[in-house]
Amino acid sequence: MSEKVHRVVFVPEGRTLNVPDGQTLLEAARSAGIRINAPCGGKGTCGGCRIVVPENPPPPEESCLRVLSGEEIHRNLRLACQLRVRRNLRVVIPEETRLADQKILVEGAERRTALAPNVRKVVLHLPPPSVADQRSDADRLLDGLAEKGLPDLQLDFGAARDLSGRLRALDFETAAVVLGSDVIGLERPSAADACYGVAFDIGTTTLAGYLVNLVTGEVAAAAGRTNPQTVYGDDVVARIEYCGRDKRGARTLQGLVVDAMNAMIREVCRKAAIRPSVVYEVTVVGNTTMNHLLLRLPVDPIARAPFVAASASGQSVPARDLGLKIHPRGRLYAGPLVASFVGADTVGVILATGLHESDRLRMAIDIGTNGEIVLGMRDRLIACSTAAGPAFEGARIRYGMRAATGAIDRVDLDGDRLILHTIDEAPPVGLCGTGLLDAVVALVEAGIVRPNGAMRSAGDLAECPPELARRVVGTDGDLGFVLASDDETRIGHPVLLMQKDIREVQLAKGAIAAGTAMLLEEFGATAADLEEVLLAGAFGNFIRPERALAIGLIPNVPREKVKFVGNAAGVGARMLLVNRDLRSVAEDVARGTEHIELSRRPDFQQHFAEAMHFPTGRP
Amino acid sequence: MSEKVHRVVFVPEGRTLNVPDGQTLLEAARSAGIRINAPCGGKGTCGGCRIVVPENPPPPEESCLRVLSGEEIHRNLRLACQLRVRRNLRVVIPEETRLADQKILVEGAERRTALAPNVRKVVLHLPPPSVADQRSDADRLLDGLAEKGLPDLQLDFGAARDLSGRLRALDFETAAVVLGSDVIGLERPSAADACYGVAFDIGTTTLAGYLVNLVTGEVAAAAGRTNPQTVYGDDVVARIEYCGRDKRGARTLQGLVVDAMNAMIREVCRKAAIRPSVVYEVTVVGNTTMNHLLLRLPVDPIARAPFVAASASGQSVPARDLGLKIHPRGRLYAGPLVASFVGADTVGVILATGLHESDRLRMAIDIGTNGEIVLGMRDRLIACSTAAGPAFEGARIRYGMRAATGAIDRVDLDGDRLILHTIDEAPPVGLCGTGLLDAVVALVEAGIVRPNGAMRSAGDLAECPPELARRVVGTDGDLGFVLASDDETRIGHPVLLMQKDIREVQLAKGAIAAGTAMLLEEFGATAADLEEVLLAGAFGNFIRPERALAIGLIPNVPREKVKFVGNAAGVGARMLLVNRDLRSVAEDVARGTEHIELSRRPDFQQHFAEAMHFPTGRP
Repeated sequence: MSEKVHRVVFVPEGRTLNVPDGQTLLEAARSAGIRINAPCGGKGTCGGCRIVVPENPPPPEESCLRVLSGEEIHRNLRLACQLRVRRNLRVVIPEETRLADQKILVEGAERRTALAPNVRKVVLHLPPPSVADQRSDADRLLDGLAEKGLPDLQLDFGAARDLSGRLRALDFETAAVVLGSDVIGLERPSAADACYGVAFDIGTTTLAGYLVNLVTGEVAAAAGRTNPQTVYGDDVVARIEYCGRDKRGARTLQGLVVDAMNAMIREVCRKAAIRPSVVYEVTVVGNTTMNHLLLRLPVDPIARAPFVAASASGQSVPARDLGLKIHPRGRLYAGPLVASFVGADTVGVILATGLHESDRLRMAIDIGTNGEIVLGMRDRLIACSTAAGPAFEGARIRYGMRAATGAIDRVDLDGDRLILHTIDEAPPVGLCGTGLLDAVVALVEAGIVRPNGAMRSAGDLAECPPELARRVVGTDGDLGFVLASDDETRIGHPVLLMQKDIREVQLAKGAIAAGTAMLLEEFGATAADLEEVLLAGAFGNFIRPERALAIGLIPNVPREKVKFVGNAAGVGARMLLVNRDLRSVAEDVARGTEHIELSRRPDFQQHFAEAMHFPTGRP
Repeated sequence: MSEKVHRVVFVPEGRTLNVPDGQTLLEAARSAGIRINAPCGGKGTCGGCRIVVPENPPPPEESCLRVLSGEEIHRNLRLACQLRVRRNLRVVIPEETRLADQKILVEGAERRTALAPNVRKVVLHLPPPSVADQRSDADRLLDGLAEKGLPDLQLDFGAARDLSGRLRALDFETAAVVLGSDVIGLERPSAADACYGVAFDIGTTTLAGYLVNLVTGEVAAAAGRTNPQTVYGDDVVARIEYCGRDKRGARTLQGLVVDAMNAMIREVCRKAAIRPSVVYEVTVVGNTTMNHLLLRLPVDPIARAPFVAASASGQSVPARDLGLKIHPRGRLYAGPLVASFVGADTVGVILATGLHESDRLRMAIDIGTNGEIVLGMRDRLIACSTAAGPAFEGARIRYGMRAATGAIDRVDLDGDRLILHTIDEAPPVGLCGTGLLDAVVALVEAGIVRPNGAMRSAGDLAECPPELARRVVGTDGDLGFVLASDDETRIGHPVLLMQKDIREVQLAKGAIAAGTAMLLEEFGATAADLEEVLLAGAFGNFIRPERALAIGLIPNVPREKVKFVGNAAGVGARMLLVNRDLRSVAEDVARGTEHIELSRRPDFQQHFAEAMHFPTGRP
C-alpha cells in the first residue's frame, strides 16, 4: 500500500482527515466516524452517498455518470463510494447524504418555495437622540424600520424593556430582529446573517427536526428521534386514554415531547455550530393529537364521539410558554388541522406535494403509525387517517427495531436462497419496517405464508423450497421463520419473523389499503384514474415500490406512477417556516379538505377484511 | 324627641338604618359610619352632600333650590344635610358624594363619552357538535361570535386550553368574554352583565382608582391612596436616582405601586360587591416616570440629557405579567406619553377637557407634585411640566398632611380673627394643601408675610393686627405662625406655618406661574386671550379660585373664567376604559402636542424668580 496520504477537509465542520492515497471518500469518512448514507453498501448503484467537491472536482467515474444526472455532475456532485482520493480535497456533505443516528428521512421532494420567512434581521444605523430630536427610543427604532420599508411594526413589550440599554450599548447601530409584525430584539449588526428556524414533524412514533437558515432558505442540519411519548402508548388513542386516566398525564406527555424537541434543537445547532438563541421560530406539523398534546390543548374530545378538536386553526404562541429553548422571545407556529384525526402533517404533505394545485388526480400516502392518505387535485381534496399501527416503524414486532445500524432492511429471494441486507452492513440484530415488508413478501412468494396470512407449519411445507422450509420453527401457537440464526446475529438470539408479526403487517396493510380504496370510491375514481401515487414518510421512502405493489399495500398502478416524496410532512413544515405567506394557504387547505372517518363507514369492515389478504401469484 | 323611627335603605349597599323621625340623612349616615362628603359642614351651602331619592322624593328645601339646579332637582337630587327623614326612604349615594378614606377627588367634568369598551360579553347559544357538524370547538365559538356581528376574532391561547371543558360544562350556552380582538374566557350566560374595568391615575404622590361598570359606563366605586413609592423619593427625579443607585430599585418601586393598585382593586370591588375576576381591563395614565416604573421600562434616559423615554406609545400588556390581580387573562392599557416629562396624565387631561377639539384658547393646570400645564385649542397644543414639589399635597411642610380627617383645609381672616376649618370638622391635626395656600394668602394680606415671602419677626410686627402678631413665634432662623395651639389640637403639639413652608409654597407657585407664563409666551398669547383656565387634580379642585388668583398661582383672568374639572387625568383614564376608539385619538394627541422644557429655556430663571413674589395689595 502506498505511503502517500492526502488531506481531506469536510465542510462545514472543518474536520480534516489524513486519507491514504486511493481510499474512497466513503471509507475515509466512515473510519473517522462521519456517517454517510450508503443504502447500496458502496456499490455505486443507489446514489445515496452524493457529495460535493466544490473546487476542481476529479472527473466523474463511469458509475457516477450512470447514477447522477448531467446537471448534478455539472454542480460538482460525485459519489463518495466511487471517488478515490488521489490528492488534497475539500468536500461538502449535503444534509441529505448524512446519516442521522436513526435513519430518519431528511430529504424530500422540496418544492420551490419563495424565501419570505416570518423572521428577518434588519440592519439600522439610527441617529442618536439629541435636544433637537427627543423621540422615544421605541419611536426612533420603529421610524428607522419604516424607512427601511417595514412600516406598522410594533415593539415586543419584553424587547422594549431592554431597548434603551441595548441601543446605547450598540451606539444606535443594530440589527433589529423582526418576527411577524413585532420587533423582538436588537443585536449587533454583525449578527445580521445568523437567522435560523427549526421545522418539526411531530409523528406519533418519530420526531424529525430541520434547522433552516432563514437567510438562504437552506437546511443547515437535521435530527431524528423516537417520540418519547411512545412509553405511554403506541398510538394516539392509547395516549389520549392515558391522559384520561392520569390527571397529570397531559402535562407529562407535553414535557416529554418538548424535552425531545429541545434536545433536537441543541443537536442541530451543534451540527451547524450556532447558538440556539439565534433560532427565532419553530414550525410544527403533527396529527391532531400530537398537536394538542404539544400545545396543552385538551385531547379528550378528539377520541370521543362526535370526535372534535379543541382548535383547528394554526397557532402562533411564544416558544417559552411551551418550554422550548430558542430565542427567549421566539415563537412556535403549529400548522392548521383538518379534523380530529387528520392533522397538520397531512396539510404539510399537501403543501409539499402540491396536490392542492394539481391538474391531475394524485394520491399521497404517508405511512406511519397513523397512515394518512390524501386523494385529489385542485378542486377537491379528500383525506382520511387509518390506524396502521406502528408495525412498519418496527414496533409490536417480536424482533422489530427502528431503522438503525444492524436492522435487516431488505430481504430478497434468489431461488431458494435468502439474501439479507442490514443497515450499515452490520451483523443483523433485528427487523425494521422495510425488512419486515420484504420478508413477508418473500414468504408469500415462496408459499410459506398463505394468501390469508397463515404460516404453514412444519408438516405442511412439502411444496416449499427445502432450504427455506427448514427455517420454519415452533408450533402452531407460536410459529416463526428464522431470518438470521444465533451464529449470524452474534447477539445471543436469532432474528425470526413470527406468525403474529405477519398479522400485524396484515392489519397495517389492510388499514391502508382499505383507506385508499374508500377514498377512491368516495371520489368516484379507480386506481386507473391516478396520475401518480406519492409515497411519503420514512418507511414509504425506503420500501421498494414493487414490494408495496406486490403485497397490495398501495393501489394497483404501473410501477412508474409510484413516486417518492420524502418526509413530505417535514417538507411542509419547512415550507411554512421559509415562507410565511403559505400559512394562509395552509389554513385554506385545512378548511377545504374533506375528511372521511373510515370507522364510521358501514362498508369499512368489508374493505378492511378484503385488504387483509395478500394478492396471489407473483406481481 | 319623637319615638317614631323610619327605615332608610342605602343603595347599592343595601344597608338599612332605623332613623329617628326628623334626623337629617347626613346625621343618620354618619352615625352608621357611612361617610358622606360635606365640605360646608352641613350648612346646606356647598352642595357636596348631593344624594338621590329615586322614588317619590320629598319636596326640595329652600336651601336645596339655591344650591342645586332645576335639572338636578328634577333628577331627584337632594342635599343629605337638609333632608329630614319623615318616612321610609330608599337613598342612592352617588360615588362623588362618598368620602374616600383620603379626600381623593373622584368626580370630574366627565365628558360625554360613547360607551364602546374594549371588553364585552356576548351571550351565545351554540349548537353542540354532532357527526354532521364536527367543527372544532374553537371554530364553533368563533363562528357563533361572527353570527353575532363580531367576525375576525381570535381565541386567546390560554382560553383555548379551557375551551372544550368549559363549553361542555355549560352545555354550549355561554357568555364569551371578548377583549380587543381576543376571546379570553367563557362564562355562564347569567354572568353577562358582570363586566368591569378599573381606571387608574398614577400620580407621583397620589393614586386614584375608579371601578367602572362597562355595561352601563358608570363609576361603581372609587379609591385613593398615597403612592407608596414616595418612601423612595418625593419626586420623579429622586426615584430615578434611586433606581440608578440600587440595581433592584426599579423592581422594588414596581412592586410597591402594583401592590397598592391591587389593594385598591380589592377595595373598589368590595365596595361594589363584585369579585376582582370580573375586572377584565385596567387603564392607566401617569407621567412618563410613573408609566415606565409601572411597566418596568428603563427610566434612566428620562432624567439624563437629552431626556428621552424608552417608549411613548400606548401599551397593552397582560395584567398578570405586571402582577395585577384581575381576570387571569385581563390586560392593562397604559395611555401614550407626550415626552419624557409630559406623560399620559396630561393626555388624559386633554381628553377630559376636550382641549384638542376646542375652538377657543384654554389652559388646563393639573397641580400635583409635577404640575402639568397644557395650553391650546384645536390646531395647536403646547404642554410643559413643572417641578412644583409636593407642598400642595402636604409633603415637605412641617405640619403638613394629606387631605384627611383633621387637616386644616381652609383658613379665613375675619378682621384680625383667624377662622379655621378642618376636614370632617375634627380637631385640627395638620395642614393640607388648600389650608396651606389659604394660610399663606391670609398672612400676606395681614402683612405678616412680606411680598418677597419673608415672615416678619417679633420685633417687626408693629403695623400688624395684634391678635395675629402674637401668634408669631420663634427666631429668625426658625420663625413660625401658630395656626392652632396645643389646646386646640389635643394631640400634644400645635400646628404652625413655618417660614420654610412659605418658601416651599413660593417654589411651587413660582414653578407653576413660570410655566403658565412661558406657555402663553410660546403661544404668542396673554392671559387676556384665555377663554377659560381649568383647574384639575385634587388640590386644584379644593382651592378657592380667588385665593389662587390672589397669590398669583394661576394666570390673572376674571374669576368666572376659572373652572374646576375634577381629577381630569383620572377622567381621561376612565374615558380610555369606556371607549376603546379614544385610544387612537389619545395617540394622535400625544404625538401632536408640543412640549417645552422649561429648564432649557434661557428666560426660565427670570420668570421663575418673578413668580416667586406674592402680588401686593388685596385682589
